[in-house]
Amino acid sequence: MGKTAIAGAIADAGVDPTAVSALYVGNMLSGMLSDQQHVGPLLATAAGLSGVEASTVEACCGSGGAALRWGYMAVASGMHETVVVAGVEQMTHQEAKTVTKGLATASDWEKEGAHGATFVSLNGALMSMYKEKYSVDHEAFGMFPMNAHNNAASSAHATLQKRLGPNDYRNSAVITDPVRLLDACPTCDGAAAVVLTANRDIARRQGNNALVRLAGSGAATDILCVMDRPQPLHLSAVEKSTQQALAHAQIDMGTVDLFELHDAYSIMACLCLESAGFALPGQGTHFAKDGHLALNGILPIATFGGLKARGHPVGATGVYQASEAFLQLTQAAGANQVKGAEVAMTQNIGGAGASVYTHVFVRE
Amino acid sequence: MGKTAIAGAIADAGVDPTAVSALYVGNMLSGMLSDQQHVGPLLATAAGLSGVEASTVEACCGSGGAALRWGYMAVASGMHETVVVAGVEQMTHQEAKTVTKGLATASDWEKEGAHGATFVSLNGALMSMYKEKYSVDHEAFGMFPMNAHNNAASSAHATLQKRLGPNDYRNSAVITDPVRLLDACPTCDGAAAVVLTANRDIARRQGNNALVRLAGSGAATDILCVMDRPQPLHLSAVEKSTQQALAHAQIDMGTVDLFELHDAYSIMACLCLESAGFALPGQGTHFAKDGHLALNGILPIATFGGLKARGHPVGATGVYQASEAFLQLTQAAGANQVKGAEVAMTQNIGGAGASVYTHVFVRE
Repeated sequence: MGKTAIAGAIADAGVDPTAVSALYVGNMLSGMLSDQQHVGPLLATAAGLSGVEASTVEACCGSGGAALRWGYMAVASGMHETVVVAGVEQMTHQEAKTVTKGLATASDWEKEGAHGATFVSLNGALMSMYKEKYSVDHEAFGMFPMNAHNNAASSAHATLQKRLGPNDYRNSAVITDPVRLLDACPTCDGAAAVVLTANRDIARRQGNNALVRLAGSGAATDILCVMDRPQPLHLSAVEKSTQQALAHAQIDMGTVDLFELHDAYSIMACLCLESAGFALPGQGTHFAKDGHLALNGILPIATFGGLKARGHPVGATGVYQASEAFLQLTQAAGANQVKGAEVAMTQNIGGAGASVYTHVFVRE
Repeated sequence: MGKTAIAGAIADAGVDPTAVSALYVGNMLSGMLSDQQHVGPLLATAAGLSGVEASTVEACCGSGGAALRWGYMAVASGMHETVVVAGVEQMTHQEAKTVTKGLATASDWEKEGAHGATFVSLNGALMSMYKEKYSVDHEAFGMFPMNAHNNAASSAHATLQKRLGPNDYRNSAVITDPVRLLDACPTCDGAAAVVLTANRDIARRQGNNALVRLAGSGAATDILCVMDRPQPLHLSAVEKSTQQALAHAQIDMGTVDLFELHDAYSIMACLCLESAGFALPGQGTHFAKDGHLALNGILPIATFGGLKARGHPVGATGVYQASEAFLQLTQAAGANQVKGAEVAMTQNIGGAGASVYTHVFVRE
């Protein structure tokens, strides 16, 4: 999968593979689920990049975003001119309980995972707290998966290419109260890759002559144990990294045309919108209900299905988001095109808001 | 351990902790041995750096060197002024077979680990090949552990603080033919940390007013499966990353005053000397025998005991090497001081030469 994604990115960029001098890989679970750490050199050789610098970045479900940030720094520091950032994750070859346990190592193991907490239950706790604090009906969260699935239906690389209606959500089974099956992203396999370069000639080589600039990068962390945070419903690392990325890009948040956020759970999509500053606290579901999040809304999210329906191969997700931002900004998103998109923000999260990587892409 | 190392580095640097805006952590096995991935934010909070960017770098036993390189790029790219690079590994709380299996995930699992190969056996294969090709007696390798243990005897942070004589080596048990117990580094726990800054005022704040510049960084990979390489005894990634780091630092290899190399096994120390270019192919053990590697030799190695005797807490080792280079260049190495040391090279390896990170430090 990683080899295919890298070959595709290099071919699409029209770059000579010998010009690629480093590979940064986002991966979380290969050691635990496949007995294979050291994914960097393995993937470099498989992709025909043998010999280049190749390292793996581990920030759990935020690994892809972290790899993208390292790639940015590698080019910005002058250490490399052209690099590949890839994300790869294989999860479906193991039993669900093994995968769930693996994912739970992204929590504070001594305080959460070891006591049986999983990411479904941690998100469930946040969702309960939110519903109580803001008196929100469960049904209001349905706008997030319905929007994601609606976009996935026309997305060739989505895992769950099917639309959902209100009845599907209403009848969806509760998996860990109050989280329903349709509030949670699927376990899946996937890989994505992008080429970053400081060479504008290389960057321009796309068929339509478009150039996308990675204009801003932000990264922040929060206390790992969710209930140790002073305000669990405010994702402080989302706020910090969003502000950093926008400031770095010198972009006003109002100019963001689409936001690929980390909708691993409905509640996470809602909290991200609020903590990033796109919606007021407690207003996330209302914002969704108003139709603002659709492809023709004021802030399209999950434009190819998001984590919920495109899928969430954890260490790869952040790189999927970057690829999707690129497709949108180069007007190559087909049926999923956000018209006239010029600025895209991507946000990839490890744990329940513990590691957050935000990037801003601008069409030039 | 990580918290203690970071607190020590920050205190020693005399830097205000609020000036630290990122933490890069080298770690390999925490997910597999302690059910805890996501070490970045956990350690950031423990070390009083809550909220800062914090990611883990995974390049197996080369993770510490990879984290150092990311820290360098973070500062060189202008994204951060002052960062902490830490390495941390806990290995002794699990049974030996679990640790051995965990370490074997650094090999090409499908071609090596799954068939029973371990790092002892992979190094054993290289050692057999070397002995046969160059007609070297096993005893010739004894100079590496004897030198390392000699230096560890006066090193406060070494795991094995005892000297070895030729009889100890001669009588050492064969663990995987031809590797003897005293050819292999010990399993151990450990953490190390350094502060990197672009601010010369902060950098100068040490008691003795010394300033050490991280002048060069190199990184390269090789085919992961050892026997798939065209010349297994030539570590091509060692050669490449050494040349990159020296070129980046604009330093001639002859001016290197000490070399903290990756002596996880006697054969690895020997191959590193040769592949880096300090000894001709087949001459590594002769070079050692001539006394060149001692503290008063022409190329001191393992000056505080190296991986062999200081210990090899895998993801932390590359950061130990940087700390030791710093102590040598600031003339703070006590009984282990290399007199007049002005240029130090460190080299950290993941797998049997698959990921190699080389750094050059210069006293100013």
